[in-house]
Order: sequence, then C-alpha cells, then structure tokens
Amino acid sequence: MNTTPPPDIIRSAYAELIVSDLAASRAFYVGVLGLVVTFEDDDAIYLRAFEEYLHHSLVLRRGPVPALAALAYRVRSAADVETAADYYEELGVRVERRAPGATRGIGAAVRVADPLGFPIEFFYDAEHVERMTRRYDVQGAGAISRLDHFNIVTPDVPAARDYYARLGFRVSEDIQDDDGVVYAAWMFRKATVHDIALTGGAGPRLHHIAFATHERSQILHICDHLGTLRESDRIERGPGRHGVSNAFYLYLLDPDGHRIEIYTHDYYTGDPDNPVVTWDVHDNQRRDWWGNPVVPSWYANASTVLDLDAHPMALTERTEAAESDVTIGADGFSYTRRDDAETGFKLGTQV
Amino acid sequence: MNTTPPPDIIRSAYAELIVSDLAASRAFYVGVLGLVVTFEDDDAIYLRAFEEYLHHSLVLRRGPVPALAALAYRVRSAADVETAADYYEELGVRVERRAPGATRGIGAAVRVADPLGFPIEFFYDAEHVERMTRRYDVQGAGAISRLDHFNIVTPDVPAARDYYARLGFRVSEDIQDDDGVVYAAWMFRKATVHDIALTGGAGPRLHHIAFATHERSQILHICDHLGTLRESDRIERGPGRHGVSNAFYLYLLDPDGHRIEIYTHDYYTGDPDNPVVTWDVHDNQRRDWWGNPVVPSWYANASTVLDLDAHPMALTERTEAAESDVTIGADGFSYTRRDDAETGFKLGTQV
Amino acid sequence: MNTTPPPDIIRSAYAELIVSDLAASRAFYVGVLGLVVTFEDDDAIYLRAFEEYLHHSLVLRRGPVPALAALAYRVRSAADVETAADYYEELGVRVERRAPGATRGIGAAVRVADPLGFPIEFFYDAEHVERMTRRYDVQGAGAISRLDHFNIVTPDVPAARDYYARLGFRVSEDIQDDDGVVYAAWMFRKATVHDIALTGGAGPRLHHIAFATHERSQILHICDHLGTLRESDRIERGPGRHGVSNAFYLYLLDPDGHRIEIYTHDYYTGDPDNPVVTWDVHDNQRRDWWGNPVVPSWYANASTVLDLDAHPMALTERTEAAESDVTIGADGFSYTRRDDAETGFKLGTQV
Amino acid sequence: MNTTPPPDIIRSAYAELIVSDLAASRAFYVGVLGLVVTFEDDDAIYLRAFEEYLHHSLVLRRGPVPALAALAYRVRSAADVETAADYYEELGVRVERRAPGATRGIGAAVRVADPLGFPIEFFYDAEHVERMTRRYDVQGAGAISRLDHFNIVTPDVPAARDYYARLGFRVSEDIQDDDGVVYAAWMFRKATVHDIALTGGAGPRLHHIAFATHERSQILHICDHLGTLRESDRIERGPGRHGVSNAFYLYLLDPDGHRIEIYTHDYYTGDPDNPVVTWDVHDNQRRDWWGNPVVPSWYANASTVLDLDAHPMALTERTEAAESDVTIGADGFSYTRRDDAETGFKLGTQV
Repeated sequence: MNTTPPPDIIRSAYAELIVSDLAASRAFYVGVLGLVVTFEDDDAIYLRAFEEYLHHSLVLRRGPVPALAALAYRVRSAADVETAADYYEELGVRVERRAPGATRGIGAAVRVADPLGFPIEFFYDAEHVERMTRRYDVQGAGAISRLDHFNIVTPDVPAARDYYARLGFRVSEDIQDDDGVVYAAWMFRKATVHDIALTGGAGPRLHHIAFATHERSQILHICDHLGTLRESDRIERGPGRHGVSNAFYLYLLDPDGHRIEIYTHDYYTGDPDNPVVTWDVHDNQRRDWWGNPVVPSWYANASTVLDLDAHPMALTERTEAAESDVTIGADGFSYTRRDDAETGFKLGTQV
Repeated sequence: MNTTPPPDIIRSAYAELIVSDLAASRAFYVGVLGLVVTFEDDDAIYLRAFEEYLHHSLVLRRGPVPALAALAYRVRSAADVETAADYYEELGVRVERRAPGATRGIGAAVRVADPLGFPIEFFYDAEHVERMTRRYDVQGAGAISRLDHFNIVTPDVPAARDYYARLGFRVSEDIQDDDGVVYAAWMFRKATVHDIALTGGAGPRLHHIAFATHERSQILHICDHLGTLRESDRIERGPGRHGVSNAFYLYLLDPDGHRIEIYTHDYYTGDPDNPVVTWDVHDNQRRDWWGNPVVPSWYANASTVLDLDAHPMALTERTEAAESDVTIGADGFSYTRRDDAETGFKLGTQV
Repeated sequence: MNTTPPPDIIRSAYAELIVSDLAASRAFYVGVLGLVVTFEDDDAIYLRAFEEYLHHSLVLRRGPVPALAALAYRVRSAADVETAADYYEELGVRVERRAPGATRGIGAAVRVADPLGFPIEFFYDAEHVERMTRRYDVQGAGAISRLDHFNIVTPDVPAARDYYARLGFRVSEDIQDDDGVVYAAWMFRKATVHDIALTGGAGPRLHHIAFATHERSQILHICDHLGTLRESDRIERGPGRHGVSNAFYLYLLDPDGHRIEIYTHDYYTGDPDNPVVTWDVHDNQRRDWWGNPVVPSWYANASTVLDLDAHPMALTERTEAAESDVTIGADGFSYTRRDDAETGFKLGTQV
Repeated sequence: MNTTPPPDIIRSAYAELIVSDLAASRAFYVGVLGLVVTFEDDDAIYLRAFEEYLHHSLVLRRGPVPALAALAYRVRSAADVETAADYYEELGVRVERRAPGATRGIGAAVRVADPLGFPIEFFYDAEHVERMTRRYDVQGAGAISRLDHFNIVTPDVPAARDYYARLGFRVSEDIQDDDGVVYAAWMFRKATVHDIALTGGAGPRLHHIAFATHERSQILHICDHLGTLRESDRIERGPGRHGVSNAFYLYLLDPDGHRIEIYTHDYYTGDPDNPVVTWDVHDNQRRDWWGNPVVPSWYANASTVLDLDAHPMALTERTEAAESDVTIGADGFSYTRRDDAETGFKLGTQV
C-alpha cells in the first residue's frame, strides 16, 4: 500500500481512441451523435458535448489499430497532477510526464500504466472553450450533454475495486452471486452512479465510454436517425432501462467497433452513506429492468488497450465464472422472480 | 361479389377476449395498463381508455379457453347495422342479430362469422360514459388514450386484403417480396395507418389488439412498471420503432398470453391518394426501424378464435412462404442495406 | 339554403400568406420551425411539414401588405371541385376557377369569396413530393408533422358555425355564456378537434394557422431555440395546455405578425356522436387549463384578409360581447372554481 | 472572520415549514406532488421524494403562523456537526444543540441563527428508509426525484454571497447591472447549479424550496393535474425555461402560500473552474429564456422566517435597487436584444 496519498480525482474527463478512418468516425460522432468539434486536423478530431467547457471529452486519433490510447481523469488542482505522479511512482508502475499541449487543449499531465493495465492520464489545466448549454440553435433532437463514465474489462473485479477504492472511488452498485463472486462493480467520484465501471472478463480492455443526455427522447432519436441512415446495425443493444443504475441506456458501435453508451436518468450518490445496491447475477432484470436479453457480443467484445508506447496490451483471462456463462444457456440460468418455479427468462424461451 | 353495399364502418371499436382468471386479468389491464373499469361483475370486466366515451373498448369475459370472442367495428348509423346483416347474408355466412344489451353497453348489433373465420360484430348504438380526457387526477404515467387497431393472422393475405377492400378499407402499408408474395398488409377506415392488420400465417387467429398513447414516455413507463412488479416477462417485444407505420411500439402478453400492443406516433392517412408504402420482406428495418430482432414467439404465437357458438375455430395453414422463414436462419436472410455484401443483420450475427 | 350539395371537404390543406420580406420569413419558417422547402423563387416559398406528401401546406408570397391570400380545403375528388364551384355560385358569391398550376403544385381549383368574407380555395389534384416521415436525418428537435387547422375571426359566430355546418363541418367544442352568447366554436371534417376555429371579433381576419407535432418536447424546443436566437419576443403566448381541445399549444408571431400555433395532443372526434364540449366564457381554464392569462394581443390582433383581387377586406365589428371584455378587468371576470366566493383568477391578482 | 474552519457541507437536505392545516397541505404535497409519507401524526408530516433514502426532505409542522422553521444542510460527518457548532459560536450567533430525534429521523444536530437571520440546521446522522427509485408501481406521471435547493430573500446579496463563500459555497450564476449591483446569486456545494439561491429583497424570508424531476413531462403533468382539481391558481409562474441555470421550471403555491419550485435540466458544476455566468438585470431572458413575464407576486411575496424560539423574524429592507423596479414599468426596462432600438419586451407590450 502507498504512503503517498492519492490525487484528488474529480471525475472521468476524456478518452482518447485510436480509429482507422477519421472521416468514417466523424460521420458517426459528429453526424449522428452531434458532438461538437473543438479542433480537427489530418491526425485527430477533438470533440465535446454541449454542456462541456473543457477543450474535449473525446479525442479520435488516426492509427493503425483501433484501440484505447488513454482514459483521463481530471484532478482538483495542478498540485494533484504531481501527487498522481508520486503516487504511481511509489506503486512502481511506469509514469510519464506530459508537457502542456502534449495532448492539444490539455495542460501539464501525467500518464501512467496503471496496475490494471490501462493507460491513465491525470490532468488539471485545460483550455476553456464555449459551453454550448444554451445553444439550442445547433442542438439536434439527439443532443448529448456531457461525458458520463468509462467501463473497463478486467479479470479480477475485487482487486480492481480495491485499487479504485484506494484512489477514493466508492461503490454504488455491483453484481455478485451467492458465493460472493463479483461480476461487475460501479464506482464513482462525482455524485452520479459511476465514473468507472468494472466488468469482469479478459483484460485490460475498454468495454465502453458513456455520454449523458437530459431526456430519453434524445436517446430514442439517435436510434431513429441510424435507421434513416441505414446504419441500424450500429445499435448493438437497447434502448432499455438498466436495473443497475436505473439509467435509460443505448449501446452503439462506432465504425471501428468501439462501444459508446448513451445514458440518462441515473441518481444522486453524493452523500457519504449512499446505499450500495447489490444485484444477484441470476436476476434477469439486473442489466435490463425490462428483461430484454443482453446480446452475446455485448459480453464478448471490447476494445484493445494500448500501453504507453502504443503497443496493444496482452490479455489476462478471467479465472472466475463469466457472467454470460452463469446466466445464459447450458448450466447458466436467470430468473425474473427469484423463487418462481417456472422460468420467466425471456431469452431462454425465445432462442 | 355482393350487390348489397357494405356497411359504412367508422373504425375498430372493441374486442371481447375470453380469459381464464378475471382477477389476474384485472391486475394486468387495470393495475398495469391503467384502463378504466366501466363495469365489472363475476363474469366480465368492461374497460375503456381515457379518451373513450363509449361504454368499453375491451371486454374481458371469464371462460374455459383463452380466446377471442369477437372483434367489433362501429358503423356510421343504426341503419348500417342492418346493412351489415344484409351484406353478410348475401355473402352466405352465418349472421346473428343481437338485441340491445346482449353485450352490456352496446345497442342492437349484428355478429357474423366472416369469410376469414373471425367473429365480427357491427354496432352503432352504445352507452356513453364519462370521457376522461382531462382527468389527470387518475391518469398515471402510462396513461392510454384509446383503442387503435386489431391485428389478425390469416393464411391468404391478398384474399383477406381484397375482402377488406370490398368493405371500404384501404391499404396504407404492406410487406412483399420480389415475387409479389404478400406477407402482411395494414388497412384502415379511420385516418390512421390501420384499423386492421393482416398477418400471414395459420388462421384464423388474433395476433394482437393495440391501444394508443400520446407520447413514448407513457409506453416506457409501462415497461418500468412491469419491471417493478417483477413481471418483465410480460414484455414480449420492444419497445421499439416500427418501420411499417413509423409508430413507437411495445408488445405485452396478458396473463392468458393474449398479445397487447401499446402504440403511438403513426401518421395521418385520410386523403384519398394516401401513398402506399411497400416494404421488402428482407428489409431488416421493416418491423423494427432500429433493426432489433423480432422474437420468434411474436411470429409463432397468436390467440385462438371462437366461432359464434364459442367453439374454437380450426386453423387453415398458410401455403405461401412464412415471413420468419424467409428472413431468419437457414435459407432466410435480411439486410440492413440492400446491396451490402456484408450482412448487417443483428440477430444473424448474435445468435 | 342551397339545393346543390356541398363539396366533400376532407380537411384544411394549405394557407397562402402575403409577407413583406421573404428572407425574414424563411429564417422563421425554415430556420426556426424547420419546415421543408418544396420550392422557392424570388416571389414565393412553398413549404410542407415532415409527414406531408402534397406539394405544400403553406405558401409565403411576397407582397405589399402582410395578409392572408387564401385558405385552401382539400376535397375528396376532382368532381368535388366542380361541386364547390356550383355550390358557391348558387350562394351568389364570387367564384373564380383556377387552372392547374395557378398555384404551383396545385391542380384545377376554385377560389371563392365565402359568405364570411374569406378567400377560400377548394382543390383535389396536387403534386406529390417526398413524404419525409422517416427522414430523421433532417428532422430537428422541434420537428413539425403536418398542418392541423385554421382559426378565423368573424363577428357572428353562430352564423359562421351554421355556414360551416352546411358544408358538413361538426362542432367539437365551443365557448358560451349563460345567455347563450357564443364566443368561439371549433369545427372539424377530419377526425381531430378542428379544421377551422371560429373566434368572435371584428372580421374577416385570420387569427392563426396551426401545425401539429407528435410530442410536447418538440414545441418546447422551438421556445428554447427562439431564446438562443434572441427572438423570444416571437413567443406571444404559451406554451400551455388548452382547456378547449386539451391540446398542448404555443403561439408564435412571424416577422409580419402572422400568428402561428404549434399544437399537439388533441383527441379523436371521428364518431358521429362525438360529444360536444361547451365551456363557460368565465371559466378561467377554458383557454389555458393551467389558468395562465391570455395576453391581450392574442385577443386584439389578427391578420388582414384579402379579397380575390388582393385588396384588403373591410372589417365588420362584432356586436355581441367580446370575450376579453367579459373575462378581464372592469366588469369582466373569470373563475377557477365556479362557486368560489374568493377569486382564484391569476391575472386579476397579478396586474 | 473565523479561525474555526467551516463544517464540510454536502448539500441542502431538508426544510421544515409551518403550515396552518395539515390535511390541506397533505392534499397538495402528497395528493398533487406525489411526495412519499415517511411518517405522519397530528402534528407533522415527514415527506421525501422517490430517490431519497434519508427519513425526509420536507417536514410540514402544524403551527399558528405559516413560516419557515428551519433549513437543514447535511454535513459530511458527525464531527462536522460539532465543527458547525464551534464555527457559529465563534461567529457569535445563537447555537442550539439538538439531541437525536429532536426532529424525527434526524440524529444529533445543531441549529443556529445564522448571520442572515435564518434558522439553519446542520446534521449528519439520519434514519435510512426505502429509496424508491425503482418503485414505478407508485410513481405517478409527475414523480419527483429529490430536493434540489433553497432560495432565500436577503437584503444585501454580496454580503450573503460572501458569508456563504466562507462556508465553501461557490457561485454558479448571478444577476448584476452595469454598476455592479448584485440582484441575485446562485451558489452550490453539490455539483449542480445551486443548493442556495440568494434573492435580493426585504429579508430574512424564504423565497422557495425546489424539488427536481428527471424530465419536463413530469412538471407538465403537475400543471395538468392542478387543472383537473380546479386548483390552477396554485400555479404562480411557469412552466418555463430559466435563463439562469438553464433549468425547466414551475412555481407553485402551497395552501399557505409557501412557494415550491419543480425543476429539471440544470447542468454539472463540479469542476473547480466551473465558469460563472453573469446576467444583465435588464436582459429579459435571464429569468425566463422564452421572455415570458415574471408575475409581480413572484417578486413581492415570500414566506416568513422564524427564529429559534419560533417567533417571526423582523424584516430588514433592501437598500439597493429592486430587480422588479429596474426591469418593469416606470423607469425600469428590459430588452430581448441588447442593442435593439425597438423594445422586444413582452410584458411591456402587453399590459
């Protein structure tokens, strides 16, 4: 354990994704999602949502292999950036100091290879740009407000949870079984259900990044729009209501297969005694409150993660039971009503 | 062909369903859907939606076999009831005159065994009750406005379409293949996409009846509510956006397996030259604009239909290709983009 | 009374407005309301809403005096156009036959100087253009579906009501006082609350034309958008919920002061016995169910109407009591609760 | 200035209002707003919203004079309650320690007579009750999620702002004029636009308390519901879109005239450099983005505040200009477009 205190992390702040074709990505992120372009050139596009005033919450960078290049947390002060460097140096992982502008719009920063295998950035200083909250002239029917959270795949969820707890994140909800196996956990710094979700599986991989809207109609419009474009196959799962978080959700796949969630209606978690909600892995309403089946690709696929030299990270397999195995098919099962003799599980009766 | 003109049908008006357990049905139709009870006793419950002022749009009657007992169309005048009797007598099918009150709240009526094998009622006179349009004190978050349409399963869709066309119904949309096989058709009298939909399959069976809401949020609430009740397995399909009709939809199963659609956002069809929309049966967005798969049960299951003596009707199989066969698995296929070499069909890549 | 039967009118179909500055009008109708341009040149802009497939539902024509040039009803057939000519000739008013294309996109038509002093067109044939129902790629957050109705100011409401009744329109709702004075009436051909509303006052004048959306959020977006443009003074009244019609509404003023309503959530009226709702003129919830005051300009102002030679019509004053006088200030009064000793009228306690 | 550090305040947590008739208040807060009763007896009702798990966010206590009895902030720990006592003792104001249960459901607390004249409570411990986030079976169409903020009237806004800044609150938005007069300020601890708003005027008085919903449709339903109950005169102002905060709002008056806001759609403020938005007092869109007039009662009326002995506090008048005076009538003015020669101010052209 560290003797250095952790940096004071405010929230998940931006992701940097490697994409293979900037024009195709632009058509999706700007054309469909309506994100605002802060800056773009031949190598990268810097995007933000309508209520964000920092330079970007998403960087799309052209590269040979679609992957996650970095997840960035904002810390409370410039001093916290230094604290982060010290903290991770004491942890014994690789720490890279980045000069202001190393990422356009971002001040002095630190990138680390975190113990879970992810490239994580900490920054405080960032360029301010127009906050377009009241720019209804350019907000479409599917307007997005802000980045909400990251979701990562990692083999050992309790270990990852403990690591994040030491960074000051608290658990809002998790999925377990009666033997105490933890399949996933949701953790937060800002007062929402999560800044980071931990999904059990071969890792490190990026499961998705999520953006928030104000209302559900904005999420539904994105589906309608993709239908018009004859790109409904970008809709991987949803729309639906999560059990976990109670949020209304939609999962999309960008042109490189990076998964993007659009999300709204979660709840305030900012009090110190915010109750933790634990879901039974066999509860068929845990991931969709309406019992609609989770598609297999949602469990199976996730984005490659790069190390600080931009090489893909090798994967470590999960050794505990996989959520999809224990809930679907063969020996797996789910229930709608816990003690119901009859199954009420929709997928089971359908396929 | 008839020499008697057909009755002037206004719209689909009410359905009479046989249910096995009135208390269970009440919990669903009143407790979840929020329909208003006009009258109930030990044998039946008479229900209406909030903007309806006739006695009922749905009768739930206790009986030994869950089934459809009648679909009722309202005609323009009392004289049209007589016209209906004459019309069907000339057709040579069984015609039964019903005294006022034979169905509570309904005046003089005629029930016929129509050529498609369905028990169809025509009535004009009906008891008026409170129209609760402005009764926001009792309208819940999932408030339903009115009955919208019936959907029936019949083996020969073109024959059924022609029969309904002679009754003055017009086609708004249909599903065909390149060989001209018609898989389904939507037909209307009132100025919406349909009063009756014809679904190709072994018939006569009732596929579903549909109720309309004003907004999508009301449909989403019904899903949320079923989740809370731990009855999410009543959600068979959806919510989603139809291709056909452009309506936002949800399919539920009542305690006897009768299928109920909740529906909103279709369009005005009242002009004589309203364009017909024909969908390719292989178009994966025809039944869900977002490309979400149609669950197999939705194709396979439908309610038994009773004859005028309350005996279940024998089924006639469809001889032409079945929509589910030509679009899913084995030789069947669907596309998201017509000339796309790669498949974009979500179900195909998932299961 | 006529011996010629009236034409079979389907619905209110388009309005032709004279505007002083096409560019300014375009900024409003296209830039803010999002109407689709079917055609435009230096003299006129032809607009339609997203679910309309006829050439236009609104013509903006450049002219010296902002005014109404015509209100057009669609009839059921080409023969009905002839019927209309005969009907009005028998009435002894001026009748003008118009060749196909006299108005771009419209076939053979008849324009009449109707007995109420309005320039009314009847047409059947019209050019079909793309119905953009499913064009979510171009539908903004405030997307409009279709023209819904016209509202005209006329001195003698019962006389106007009787005239329209002879044309086959039925009353859905009206506003009266205990002495039987009729202040306004709502009448329809298509199965909604109205195609034409009759507002008592000096006439002939056009009170407004109304477009329908699917949901309330689309109306709210138009307000937000006008705020961003710093044109909130185009919002004359609302948004709110009407008592009459139960619709959610918003009144805007275009650059020439023509009033445009955006409207949603009224109810089905298509059955022959649709109950008439009569409101007491003193009921403060009749025009706004939430009791928000009607602004004086809404009562006072309306658009000039042109005769068939494009000359402004002279006004005839209303001789009966004016709604604003009997409900606001001085001797006028309104109540929230009929027998409440205390006044509950918001405007009265505020100004 | 204090040498004792301030307590670590998390958020505005509950209000205690004195009401004259508990049954009438219950009809409003439970019957219309749908708040959940945690406990009630002959003296008081303890209410919470659907996403709250502490015992209550509103106490209605029967008493002789309608008034505010306390505003309560939750602090981060039990130790912070002690810190609060020390902090205010050093300030030299009256401090009252309250045993657990002094207010039902609340643990050890401190109440102080704060320098602005308000009775303020600090607590950490509180009884946990069911968080009804997912209880869609009992959530109506106007379901409320949580308490959001308090708004108080105080004569000297800069002095109040500085006092709250010393407690760790930050300003999100304010209203000023060109001379630097501050008319109102919005300040927060949790990451929303405010926990406390400071409104310039004779004080101490309570302007309103505000509850949050997820969507605008929930606010609109409350209006519809009041219309049905013939209590539309409880709607004092709105619904509308605030300029300040960008929130969608509605102001209601409870049976004693206490003002309740229902509020949604504000934005995240949790980063340390969250930009402050300053509005010009003459900007007609500052308090309603759509330019709808602020009703005079909203400026004039506010609830009496009690001291710690339950005696009404005497008022101190504001000495600087009043917002209503500088923006409406006589010498006051507002603009829609800053440099517009013509006025675009709706109220001015209407009354």
